[in-house]
Amino acid sequence: MSATKDYGRLFNFSAGPAVMPVSVLERMRDELLCLPGVGSSILEISHRSKAFDAILDRTIDDLKQLLGIPAGYSVLFLQGGSRLQFSMVPMNLLRDSGRTAQYVITGTWGKSALVEAVKEGKTEVLWDGKGGNYSQLPRWSDVKVSPEAAYLHVTSNETIQGIQFHDDPTGVAAPVVSDMSSDFLSRPVDVSQYGLIYACAQKNAGPAGVTVVIIRDDLLARGAESMPGYLLYRNHAEGKSCYNTPPTFAIYAMGLIVRWLLDDIGGLGKMAEANRSKAALLYDAIDRFPAFYQGHAEKSVRSMMNVTFRLPNEELEGAFLSEAKKAGCTDLKGHRSVGGIRASIYNAMPREGVETLASLMTSFAERHG
Amino acid sequence: MSATKDYGRLFNFSAGPAVMPVSVLERMRDELLCLPGVGSSILEISHRSKAFDAILDRTIDDLKQLLGIPAGYSVLFLQGGSRLQFSMVPMNLLRDSGRTAQYVITGTWGKSALVEAVKEGKTEVLWDGKGGNYSQLPRWSDVKVSPEAAYLHVTSNETIQGIQFHDDPTGVAAPVVSDMSSDFLSRPVDVSQYGLIYACAQKNAGPAGVTVVIIRDDLLARGAESMPGYLLYRNHAEGKSCYNTPPTFAIYAMGLIVRWLLDDIGGLGKMAEANRSKAALLYDAIDRFPAFYQGHAEKSVRSMMNVTFRLPNEELEGAFLSEAKKAGCTDLKGHRSVGGIRASIYNAMPREGVETLASLMTSFAERHG
Repeated sequence: MSATKDYGRLFNFSAGPAVMPVSVLERMRDELLCLPGVGSSILEISHRSKAFDAILDRTIDDLKQLLGIPAGYSVLFLQGGSRLQFSMVPMNLLRDSGRTAQYVITGTWGKSALVEAVKEGKTEVLWDGKGGNYSQLPRWSDVKVSPEAAYLHVTSNETIQGIQFHDDPTGVAAPVVSDMSSDFLSRPVDVSQYGLIYACAQKNAGPAGVTVVIIRDDLLARGAESMPGYLLYRNHAEGKSCYNTPPTFAIYAMGLIVRWLLDDIGGLGKMAEANRSKAALLYDAIDRFPAFYQGHAEKSVRSMMNVTFRLPNEELEGAFLSEAKKAGCTDLKGHRSVGGIRASIYNAMPREGVETLASLMTSFAERHG
Repeated sequence: MSATKDYGRLFNFSAGPAVMPVSVLERMRDELLCLPGVGSSILEISHRSKAFDAILDRTIDDLKQLLGIPAGYSVLFLQGGSRLQFSMVPMNLLRDSGRTAQYVITGTWGKSALVEAVKEGKTEVLWDGKGGNYSQLPRWSDVKVSPEAAYLHVTSNETIQGIQFHDDPTGVAAPVVSDMSSDFLSRPVDVSQYGLIYACAQKNAGPAGVTVVIIRDDLLARGAESMPGYLLYRNHAEGKSCYNTPPTFAIYAMGLIVRWLLDDIGGLGKMAEANRSKAALLYDAIDRFPAFYQGHAEKSVRSMMNVTFRLPNEELEGAFLSEAKKAGCTDLKGHRSVGGIRASIYNAMPREGVETLASLMTSFAERHG
């Protein structure tokens, strides 16, 4: 990962859509008018063409390799973002089941997922971090899932609060459904512990417009034929994500990013190492000036993706954002619902960008602390 | 519109995703690494950023100008394709209304729309072209819509059969909902005659991954809060298509195509004229060899977008496809459900491509007829 000042690019700390690898963007640019050997742009080819089918197959195979997805799971590329998954999960797995879906509420996205589930069937909240202002997470051993539950829903990384589970749940009796939107492909995951994983692409995995669903095949049998056709997972599984026209360009882009992770980065273990090391630069700066920077997350659950903190007051936060912008660091304002600063440092954020921000944090605290 | 043999491009007659204007592709390529003045790629910028908001506003304004959309309508950019609209329309406008939705079934897509509507409420088929193997269309004056209907659903152009309504329905008492997926932006439309227009982008309006909905504002009040949040039109209207992360790149691409139609083509009147003239080249070839080419559509309802015809037998069709490929004309095979030949000649198909195909049709018929 090299510096990205070429092409007039700045260090984009957006929480999503977010920074992508320069080499992937260059490849897209180079073949945007015509895919080699195909005679048309990726934007123009039929989803039923041999050329697209090869891209689709390779992307699925590469994702399976990268994540170590075991046999017995299907990879689907859908539309509508995680927001639509908030509904599709309970529509397929809960509705009319007579069972209860159990939710762990760890922040904004967990809450939003629950709002949709309540519309579809019986739900139960097993743990809610509201009391600690969503700065904490439970240990998996403290989450008492009923083996009779339709599923357990969790959010692996809360993008807005900046908190992240650092291990997979293990041995849960009910199917675990995880919204991995903001840390998907940022680290290794034991897929076999999950019934269903979903993630919108626009953090680590591609541009906005495609949502990945990895579903254990036995769960495809759930969901009634009377549901809207687009919302039934098995329609997409049976059609290999071509039940209707899929977002072809976004899938192609994800395919290139998966290849970048395999070939250029060397896999998810290496990626996680680089991500931890980048995050440490920022958390170290916070910890060196504890009277000046107040991190939102409890130390043990700090996110490696979204580093959230406050300065002593909003005026200083404004001044900080303004100096950051001058240093080429953009999109650092915290989510409008919580304020403060948020540095999203996804896979493709160059280390140089994080170093630039960390230096600014040090010098700013020294000058204003 | 110039020849597209540059860059190794062929003449792509795909029914969708489909050919795009070369100048639009060049513009995307040129700014793919960095949007001028923004510091990031369009693929990387937040949907809440000023830069994207400006793109969104301009695309909506330009679409309103291009189509002459009157006040009192909202333009939404959604995901899930027309397939999801087949469900969203009845979920929002029919479900629990106590009314009946009336459908005109003109081909494959009309039938597919009805399949989803039946799941949501009471439906009635006012006209069905099955008896004529979907080669005909009713006159609007023969479609007796009940003023009490939840809505009338029509398909303006049947992509697979190659038949197209050549006028707008006028004065229908119930809201008219039109699936314009395959002729949207190919000709002027009197938007005021419709309650809701929807179109997936990947024919004339952009890449796959975004669906445009133009909805009369009074219809936004329909649809229950108990519906899945993503599927409620008014959530998207209230959030200016940013209820959740929209498909930012596909919207940007559509914005460029709308500008191309306004600036380079000179509006939808000019576009329709060019499209009629291109289509005439192929229909003339069919009509000159009536014993050899059998057009599917009745003459009066021939589509200006999808020209469908058969040769005397499948062997000759195979030979024709093979010669076409040698001449640089690809994706001419008819839909797998109906066979034969289909030439999709959307807005961005260069006249030279259609001329090449028309000459081949002439010479092929002369040699084999």
